[in-house]
Amino acid sequence: MATFDDATAVTARPDGTTFDVELDRGWTIGTGRPNGGYLLALLGRAALETARRAGAEQQHVIAASVQYVTSPSVGPAVVDTEVLRVGRSASQVRARLVQGEQVAVQAAFTVGHLRRDVDPYWGGVDPVTLPSEAECRPLPTPPGDDGDEPTFRQQVDERFDPSGLGFVDGAPGGRGELRTWFRFSDGREPDTLSLLFVVDALPPATFDVVSTGWVPTLDLTVYVRAVPAPGPLRVRFRTGLIQDGLADEVCEVWDSAGRLVAQSTQLVGIRIPDGPAG
Amino acid sequence: MATFDDATAVTARPDGTTFDVELDRGWTIGTGRPNGGYLLALLGRAALETARRAGAEQQHVIAASVQYVTSPSVGPAVVDTEVLRVGRSASQVRARLVQGEQVAVQAAFTVGHLRRDVDPYWGGVDPVTLPSEAECRPLPTPPGDDGDEPTFRQQVDERFDPSGLGFVDGAPGGRGELRTWFRFSDGREPDTLSLLFVVDALPPATFDVVSTGWVPTLDLTVYVRAVPAPGPLRVRFRTGLIQDGLADEVCEVWDSAGRLVAQSTQLVGIRIPDGPAG
Repeated sequence: MATFDDATAVTARPDGTTFDVELDRGWTIGTGRPNGGYLLALLGRAALETARRAGAEQQHVIAASVQYVTSPSVGPAVVDTEVLRVGRSASQVRARLVQGEQVAVQAAFTVGHLRRDVDPYWGGVDPVTLPSEAECRPLPTPPGDDGDEPTFRQQVDERFDPSGLGFVDGAPGGRGELRTWFRFSDGREPDTLSLLFVVDALPPATFDVVSTGWVPTLDLTVYVRAVPAPGPLRVRFRTGLIQDGLADEVCEVWDSAGRLVAQSTQLVGIRIPDGPAG
Repeated sequence: MATFDDATAVTARPDGTTFDVELDRGWTIGTGRPNGGYLLALLGRAALETARRAGAEQQHVIAASVQYVTSPSVGPAVVDTEVLRVGRSASQVRARLVQGEQVAVQAAFTVGHLRRDVDPYWGGVDPVTLPSEAECRPLPTPPGDDGDEPTFRQQVDERFDPSGLGFVDGAPGGRGELRTWFRFSDGREPDTLSLLFVVDALPPATFDVVSTGWVPTLDLTVYVRAVPAPGPLRVRFRTGLIQDGLADEVCEVWDSAGRLVAQSTQLVGIRIPDGPAG
């Protein structure tokens, strides 16, 4: 299994804006298709490298908006990037993942500089409350999954608040909210880049409302608000409105020091089976 | 003054993916620079036209993510578009606004079909509570503004909940929240396209926390959740965390029938003057 850093490695071609990448089979969602947050982090790494080569002094992705166009396969792919602006406090880079002749993912990144150990000037949201890691539960292995088929879930140590896991037994809690502790399985500590993955590393929050097939992400946006401290992250993932075949999902991530380090929102497609609301 | 529809008109060139536009001086923010939501709606109109020409059957922008690169001037500009995918239930189009040789705005649109009079399957947020339109107040005319300099505020009839307008008198309420009724001044009824403008038509929500100069938007995302009914819209605009020179702002819009019709989030840059938090 490739580590997160190996799986998101990018190799620049001589033009300095095109990168060869290898989509790793250890970071898929079980269908053999790469996880969306993994792809976003990979594109973010290319965008940071492109910004650096263009003279940008900022080192962190502070905002990323991404559209998933077609689901790529594991294996080789190409990232092409374009600098939109190099600024004093923020720079902007567009990046897209191409496989064959097909654009698979399109994203835009704002690159900035986040100071360490910064305090809120105003606001902030108290970290989500959830039982201790020892009292929380990993997702069960799907029936029939004998471990031969690798997925990104083997790379992460997620411990969910059991009160949000009713969907596993066919009894969604009805609050539209999942809560989990998050660590990388290999002990890698979180950084700003990996937060682009973390916000898309949970099952759909809609599963706590209604059991459906997979819900494809149409548009996802992440803001990275601080450099995370070492240690486990706490993640809350909520849906607000399920309507007309679409749902929004908001993810918030706090570091071990209790600071809000990432916020994201996504719009997903959802196909509701016949029957009353859960 | 051009109407919203005239000001967002796009004229296709023979290639069918490039559009000539005229950025209207009636839709500026007072600095002579076009309002960001106005620019997004204009790009959205071009994206819808491009999707239609590519065979997409969907008619509504359901998601838009935009990065503001440089602020364009009023006058002629060009929109170039690129179809990323034409799908059965959703299509994706990239668009950017170019003036001279400079990319001013870059955006990605998801186009879908929203049914009329649809009910939530689950969730939704109760409409914001605010006093009647008669009890709410327009923003005062800025000192020195004799009306010679047109701005988009003349095109809209916004009636703010007075409890959020403390900032006008130098006394921010400290809740980080503005609430308003919204109508177009000329009686134009809201539609899905104009919601792309509405979510960016309020003063910064951070003004209810701290008085600063203008806060530039780095990244803005909008989801359109329903076709709005005729009549006034209700808008809530909130900031969550102001930290390290950045703030997030969430906007929600309800139609006259009380349905959530748009959700947006943006990341803005904010330069806090010296002194304690408001």
